[in-house]
Amino acid sequence: MSGPETDLGTRSDTSRAVAFSDAIFAIIITLLVLDLRVPDVPPGHLLSGLLSQWPAYVAYLASYSYVAVVWLNHKAAFNRIQQSDRGLHWMNLLVLFTTALLPFPTIVVSHALQEHDNADQRVGIAFYALIGASLCAAWLAFYHYLARHPDLLKEQARDHFFHVERLRALAGVVLYVLAGVLGYLVTPLVGLVIFLLLPAFYAVTSAGLYQFRATRKITNRPRPPRG
Amino acid sequence: MSGPETDLGTRSDTSRAVAFSDAIFAIIITLLVLDLRVPDVPPGHLLSGLLSQWPAYVAYLASYSYVAVVWLNHKAAFNRIQQSDRGLHWMNLLVLFTTALLPFPTIVVSHALQEHDNADQRVGIAFYALIGASLCAAWLAFYHYLARHPDLLKEQARDHFFHVERLRALAGVVLYVLAGVLGYLVTPLVGLVIFLLLPAFYAVTSAGLYQFRATRKITNRPRPPRG
Amino acid sequence: MSGPETDLGTRSDTSRAVAFSDAIFAIIITLLVLDLRVPDVPPGHLLSGLLSQWPAYVAYLASYSYVAVVWLNHKAAFNRIQQSDRGLHWMNLLVLFTTALLPFPTIVVSHALQEHDNADQRVGIAFYALIGASLCAAWLAFYHYLARHPDLLKEQARDHFFHVERLRALAGVVLYVLAGVLGYLVTPLVGLVIFLLLPAFYAVTSAGLYQFRATRKITNRPRPPRG
Amino acid sequence: MSGPETDLGTRSDTSRAVAFSDAIFAIIITLLVLDLRVPDVPPGHLLSGLLSQWPAYVAYLASYSYVAVVWLNHKAAFNRIQQSDRGLHWMNLLVLFTTALLPFPTIVVSHALQEHDNADQRVGIAFYALIGASLCAAWLAFYHYLARHPDLLKEQARDHFFHVERLRALAGVVLYVLAGVLGYLVTPLVGLVIFLLLPAFYAVTSAGLYQFRATRKITNRPRPPRG
Repeated sequence: MSGPETDLGTRSDTSRAVAFSDAIFAIIITLLVLDLRVPDVPPGHLLSGLLSQWPAYVAYLASYSYVAVVWLNHKAAFNRIQQSDRGLHWMNLLVLFTTALLPFPTIVVSHALQEHDNADQRVGIAFYALIGASLCAAWLAFYHYLARHPDLLKEQARDHFFHVERLRALAGVVLYVLAGVLGYLVTPLVGLVIFLLLPAFYAVTSAGLYQFRATRKITNRPRPPRG
Repeated sequence: MSGPETDLGTRSDTSRAVAFSDAIFAIIITLLVLDLRVPDVPPGHLLSGLLSQWPAYVAYLASYSYVAVVWLNHKAAFNRIQQSDRGLHWMNLLVLFTTALLPFPTIVVSHALQEHDNADQRVGIAFYALIGASLCAAWLAFYHYLARHPDLLKEQARDHFFHVERLRALAGVVLYVLAGVLGYLVTPLVGLVIFLLLPAFYAVTSAGLYQFRATRKITNRPRPPRG
Repeated sequence: MSGPETDLGTRSDTSRAVAFSDAIFAIIITLLVLDLRVPDVPPGHLLSGLLSQWPAYVAYLASYSYVAVVWLNHKAAFNRIQQSDRGLHWMNLLVLFTTALLPFPTIVVSHALQEHDNADQRVGIAFYALIGASLCAAWLAFYHYLARHPDLLKEQARDHFFHVERLRALAGVVLYVLAGVLGYLVTPLVGLVIFLLLPAFYAVTSAGLYQFRATRKITNRPRPPRG
Repeated sequence: MSGPETDLGTRSDTSRAVAFSDAIFAIIITLLVLDLRVPDVPPGHLLSGLLSQWPAYVAYLASYSYVAVVWLNHKAAFNRIQQSDRGLHWMNLLVLFTTALLPFPTIVVSHALQEHDNADQRVGIAFYALIGASLCAAWLAFYHYLARHPDLLKEQARDHFFHVERLRALAGVVLYVLAGVLGYLVTPLVGLVIFLLLPAFYAVTSAGLYQFRATRKITNRPRPPRG
C-alpha cells in the first residue's frame, strides 16, 4: 500500500476478490443439487424413478467437476497475482458470470436426456457445449489480460506462465465446441461422455501446462524443513 | 483497538461486515440463475423454447451487472473506511436489503416480457425501476452517512470523496426512475435497454466520479517497486 | 496456541466459527427472497397481483430484520469471545439451527395471510411466534453458557455482560410467545405488527442492554487518534 | 512459503480450501430448509398439514446434524494440516461432493415417508443410507490420504491421529449401511431413528476417537494464562 491516495480505488490487494469468487464458486457447486428432485412417479415406483433419472446424475457430476476445476484454476492463478486493477476485476467477473450460468445448461441437458426426443437432446448437448466453451473463452481472456499485465503479478510468476495457460484455455474452447458438434451431429451420448472427461483432463493439468512436467516430479517429495 | 472496553460493542473494524456483505452479494448474483429454467414446451421445440426466453437472459444480464457494480462500489467504499459504528452497519444492511430484493423484480420483469400483455410489461418495467432506484437511494444514504462521519474514514480518504459520490448515487435514482417512466409511458423495451446500459455507466465510474479523471491516467502505469 | 497438543481438537480460536456463521446468516437472509414470486394472476392483472402479495413483503421485512439483528448480536458476542470449545460450538450451531429455520415460518405465515381463512392465519402467526421464540431461547442458552464459562472470554469482557444479556434473550422469548398468543386469540394482524416491531427493539439494544446507556453517549464522539 | 517457484501451483497453505469448504457447508446446511414447504392442504387445515409433515422435520434434523458434524470433523482435521497438495484438494472435493449430495436423499426420504407406500419408504431409507455411507467413505479416503502423507501435517499432529480416525470413518460406513439394511428389511422407521442417532454419536467423538478420553478430562479446565 505504498501508492498514492488515488490507489485506494484502482489498485488493490486481491483478498476481497478471492473471497467473493470463492463464495460464488461454493454457491454454484452447491446449487447444482437443486436439480436432483424427487422423481414424479406413481406410488411404488420410487426406485425405478430414481434410476431413470441417471442423466441428471451424469450432468451433475460433469458440472460439479467443471466448477471444481474452475476453482483450482482460480486458486492457481491468484496465487501468482500480486494486486488487482479494475480490468482484472472485470475479467474475473466475466469468469464468474460464465461459471454462474452453468447450472442452467446443466438442467437443460439433464431434462432433455430424460425426455425421449432426439432433436431436443441434440439441442441440449449443443447448449451445454456453448456455455462450456464460453467459460473457457472467459479464462482465455483472463489469462490474456494477465499475460499483458505482468506488473500485476508476483515477481516469481512473471515468466511465461500465463502465456502458456492461454493454450490450455484455448484447447478447452475447441474441445467443448467439438463435443457440441459431435453430440449434435452424431449422437448426444458422445457429447455427454466428453463433458465428463474434459474436467478430468483439466484436473490433471490444473496446476498449469507450463509446470505440468515439473509438478509431477515434486508432488510426492517430502515437505521441506520449516524456517 | 486502543479504545476502552465499551468499544467492544460499538466501534469495530470492518472485516466481518465486509465478509458478510461479500457473501450476500455472492449469493444474490448466483441466485439469479435459478430464474433461468427449462422452457415449458412440447417435445421437439427445445431450441425455439430457449430462444423465446430471451427476456429472461436480458434481465439476468442487467441484474448480474448491477450486482457486480454494487460489489465494486462496496469495495471502493470500504477501502476508505477505517472502522464501523452501528449507524454504518444499518446503512450497510439497507444497501444489502435493497440488493437482496433484486432477484424479485428480475423474475417479475422477465416473466412479464415473456407474456404478451402490454399492461403487465409496463408494470414489470416500472417495478424493476422502482427497486433499482431504491438501491441507488440506499447508496445515497450510505454515502451521506459517511460524508457526515469522517471520523469513520481512513485519514487519506477524508477529502470530499463521499460528498461527491452522493451525486453518483443521486444520478442513479434519477436514471432508474426515468427508465421506469419511459418504459411505462413509451414502450417497455426502452426501459429494458436502459437497465442494461446503466450498470455499464456505473462500471466505468465505479472507482468514484471524484477520481474518474485521475484513475484513467494511472490505470496502465507500471507497478511501483515494492518496499 | 500455547496449549498442549490435545488442544488441537478442543480449544480453538473462533475465526472459522465466525466465518461459517457469517456465511449461514448471509444465505438465510438472501434465501428469503425466493418466497417473493411472480403472482399467479391472469394477463393484465400483474399490478393488482403484486399489491395483493403485501403479506409476503411484510413477512420478508420482519424476517430480514430479525436475521440482521441476529447477525449484529452474533458479532457483539464473538467480539468478546477469546476462544471456543466444543460446548460453545454446539450452542452456536443451535443458534444457527433456529435461524436457518426462519424462512419456513416466513413462507407459512406469508401464505396463510394471502389466503382468506382466519383459522389458518392464526395458526401461521402462532407458528412464526414459536420459531421466533425458539431462536431467542437458543440465544438464552448461548449467553448462559458464556456466563458460566468466563474462561472463554476476553479479559475485558469478563464482567456481567453475558449475565445481563440473558435478560434480553428471555424478554425475546416472552415477547414472541406473547405475539403468538395475541395473534392467535385476538387477530393475526396484531401478531404480524409485533413481529415487525420486535427486531426494531433488538436493533436499538443490539450492543447489549448492559451497555445501552453508555453506548448512546459515545456513539457520536470523534474517533480517537491512532497509535 | 520457503519453497521454490514451482510450489506456487502445487503446495499451498490451506486458507482458501478452508474458506471454500466452509462456504459449501454453510450453503448445504441452509439449503435443507428449502424442503420445508407450505403444506398443500385445503383452507382451514394448515395445522394438521404442518403436523403431518413430521417426516420432513425429522429428515431435516438428521441432515442438519450430519452436516454440522461434518463441519466439526473438517475443522478438527484442518487444524492439524500444515499445507495442502493437489491430492488433498481432490480428497477434500470428494468430501464436499458427497456432502453436497445430502439434500437430495433428504427430500427423497422425507417425500417417501409422507406418502403411504411401504416399498417407496424402504427405497427412500436405503437411498439415504447409501449417500450417508458414501460420505463416511469419502472421509475414510481423506483420513487415509493424510495418514499416508504426514509431511502435510503440523509437527505436533504427526502421531497416529489420522490412522485412528480411519476407524471412526469406517464405523460410519458400516453403521449407515446397517441402518439402510434394517430400514429396508425390517421397517423404515428403524432406519430413520438411526439416521438421527448417528450424528449424535459423531458429535460426541468429533474431536477424534484418539483424543476422546483425554478431551473429556480437559474440556472444563480453566483457560491457561496467556503469554
